[in-house]
Amino acid sequence: MTIANAVNEQRLWQRHMDLAKIGATAKGGVNRQAFTPEEAEARKLLAGWAAARGFSCAVDDIGNLFFRRAGTDPDAAPVVTGSHIDSQPTGGKFDGAYGVLAGLEVLEAAEDAGIVTKRPLEFVAWSNEEGGRFQPATMGSAVYTGAMNFDEMLAVIDRTGAKVGDLLPATLAATPGAQRRAFGTPLGAYIEAHIEQGPILEMEDLTIGIVTGIQGCRWFAVDVEGSEAHAGTTPFSARRDAFRAAHAIVAELYELTVDDKDILRFTVGCFEVAPGSPNTVPGHVYFTLDIRHPDAAFLKELGDKVEDVCRRNANGLKYTLRETYNVPPIKFDDGVVGRIRDCTKELKLSHRDMISGALHDAKYMNDICPAGMIFVPCEKGISHNEVEAARPADLAAGARVLAEAMIALANQ
Amino acid sequence: MTIANAVNEQRLWQRHMDLAKIGATAKGGVNRQAFTPEEAEARKLLAGWAAARGFSCAVDDIGNLFFRRAGTDPDAAPVVTGSHIDSQPTGGKFDGAYGVLAGLEVLEAAEDAGIVTKRPLEFVAWSNEEGGRFQPATMGSAVYTGAMNFDEMLAVIDRTGAKVGDLLPATLAATPGAQRRAFGTPLGAYIEAHIEQGPILEMEDLTIGIVTGIQGCRWFAVDVEGSEAHAGTTPFSARRDAFRAAHAIVAELYELTVDDKDILRFTVGCFEVAPGSPNTVPGHVYFTLDIRHPDAAFLKELGDKVEDVCRRNANGLKYTLRETYNVPPIKFDDGVVGRIRDCTKELKLSHRDMISGALHDAKYMNDICPAGMIFVPCEKGISHNEVEAARPADLAAGARVLAEAMIALANQ
Repeated sequence: MTIANAVNEQRLWQRHMDLAKIGATAKGGVNRQAFTPEEAEARKLLAGWAAARGFSCAVDDIGNLFFRRAGTDPDAAPVVTGSHIDSQPTGGKFDGAYGVLAGLEVLEAAEDAGIVTKRPLEFVAWSNEEGGRFQPATMGSAVYTGAMNFDEMLAVIDRTGAKVGDLLPATLAATPGAQRRAFGTPLGAYIEAHIEQGPILEMEDLTIGIVTGIQGCRWFAVDVEGSEAHAGTTPFSARRDAFRAAHAIVAELYELTVDDKDILRFTVGCFEVAPGSPNTVPGHVYFTLDIRHPDAAFLKELGDKVEDVCRRNANGLKYTLRETYNVPPIKFDDGVVGRIRDCTKELKLSHRDMISGALHDAKYMNDICPAGMIFVPCEKGISHNEVEAARPADLAAGARVLAEAMIALANQ
Repeated sequence: MTIANAVNEQRLWQRHMDLAKIGATAKGGVNRQAFTPEEAEARKLLAGWAAARGFSCAVDDIGNLFFRRAGTDPDAAPVVTGSHIDSQPTGGKFDGAYGVLAGLEVLEAAEDAGIVTKRPLEFVAWSNEEGGRFQPATMGSAVYTGAMNFDEMLAVIDRTGAKVGDLLPATLAATPGAQRRAFGTPLGAYIEAHIEQGPILEMEDLTIGIVTGIQGCRWFAVDVEGSEAHAGTTPFSARRDAFRAAHAIVAELYELTVDDKDILRFTVGCFEVAPGSPNTVPGHVYFTLDIRHPDAAFLKELGDKVEDVCRRNANGLKYTLRETYNVPPIKFDDGVVGRIRDCTKELKLSHRDMISGALHDAKYMNDICPAGMIFVPCEKGISHNEVEAARPADLAAGARVLAEAMIALANQ
């Protein structure tokens, strides 16, 4: 029996439904934010499922939670999959949970099929991926690899003043039998399965997204300072209209971001106009730019043009431009990506290569081991939303690809 | 002695400074809103000044306050000037106050110069011109002419629930000796002096604006309904970006409102984007359009294009367009405007014809008698602001033109 055949669609689906009861919202979503009692309860549920199949449990100091099915070589670094079980405050049942539960399904399927691997198989629930309550996001995986500083993260507080360091003991107490694992303990390879959180697979009626990388992202915040004036009495020539200048800046950016291939992402998400009265020429506008592209050079060149665009279109008004975020694109390991592609083809699943539009824990794993990702469709591309939905057959298909790829990597 | 020579710059300036003490703000402005104790105190001060010169006082049921210097023909309708003494919550010393105090100055100058007129000379302080606390604005003058319904205005409430009808008795009690005047009592002619509230006279270094009309105004409110989406994962082709659609609508309106003569006024004053997160494609935008022009046909044609512009640029998104205000332009009486122009030239004051960008009580008087307006410069065109400023010499120059024009009209 192949491991793909041992993947149990019904079991995988039921695990999602059971996990989603913890922190369930009235609208069918999940509120299970990092370091809450709900998230701790979800850890216990996971640990119970894993223990029932004999998988061992380990946790590190920031709460990253690992479950292992042993291989024949006890010294070999594990092949790891996973994602996160924390959610947005109004999150869905699948974002993160799928990657963790697909990992559990792979280990269970390996048990059911009696498959022996050289390397251990592991799945992990990374701590505080969402960052809705405690910023930054992807905290657990970034601390694990050393990209973020553990002590700094302990001091992070939420809006009520609650501190990560004060909440961690309760989180760690959820799995009292877990071994303690050191940050940076080596991984043999890492594959993360995730719902796409975008509409492409559904639009193209495909089952598997073979994720070749994560696009880079640059954020800018712009303030334009004009002068308030009476809309009836002030001629255009005497206006210092902050709205009009901001509108012109965005207009040129729209021209610069035309992309026939539809790979570039450009978004104006915040646009705040003051004082906001129908008959007053606006004196101040604040707006944000979110620019993403998988090509580092392209992203740098485009982002570096923003300053000139602001200067050209500010119409002499004072403006300030700040870059608030800059994450370069990453490319996943050719070997891992190729393995995922091969397994997808062998399973005769429709597929395409794609770039992840969102950041994932896999970004940090890619720094320390060969890594890749598998996407499955979600309804209308909707995520970070209580109506987030996915089909059992798609989730199982992704788990089958994941299982085959992990077994192959675990025997290398 | 001509009446122009009898106009006393120092007295006129001191009246402004004295009146501005009532409701004075820390920043040098005035908070003297309609139907407040402060406004009542200002009425008492005015009445005291008028009584000291023997001018009679009358008031109507909504608090419009008239002061009269008798003419030789007791049956002749008066030549009236005036404006308002209520202010914006953060208003200045000159908006409205100037028109009332220039009127007092004309009557005092006529006394000082011993000038006899056939018609009575009057100045009036119209009730609740600003409308900051009780909407609509220009309430007193509009009720006087029948353009607004008195009983409806009595029911108007402010944000705290206070009602015009309940506050009026205290307002009327400020001038206990006043005769009661009926709404619509005929006027022989009406001239209103006002600071320009715009920058044109100052920019062109001119003293007198001969106001030939008030531009028309159309307001629109637009809601664009898109769909929120992840800025990283959603390709352009799958977005329903409310911001981008609203931006495109405004872009075409900017093209349509280019005016080399700089007469047309077009303002986007409100522009509210939801949910307002840097990495979320906006799902909703609300914005307002304020379009003004002195030519009725032009204003109608342009305003009527807005619907098509919305449809063309909404990119298939749902939108709603509402026209929230529509006041056609008005043209002042040729005889009155000509008289103001002649007097200005005789006084050798620099001047230009201009259109009022803002609405004034003179709009309603124009419906019932020959009417016109005189503008004087204000610093940087700033008004509805505590820093509003004007020069004593300009205020006196405007009062001289007003005085000469009123005397001429009062002897017709």
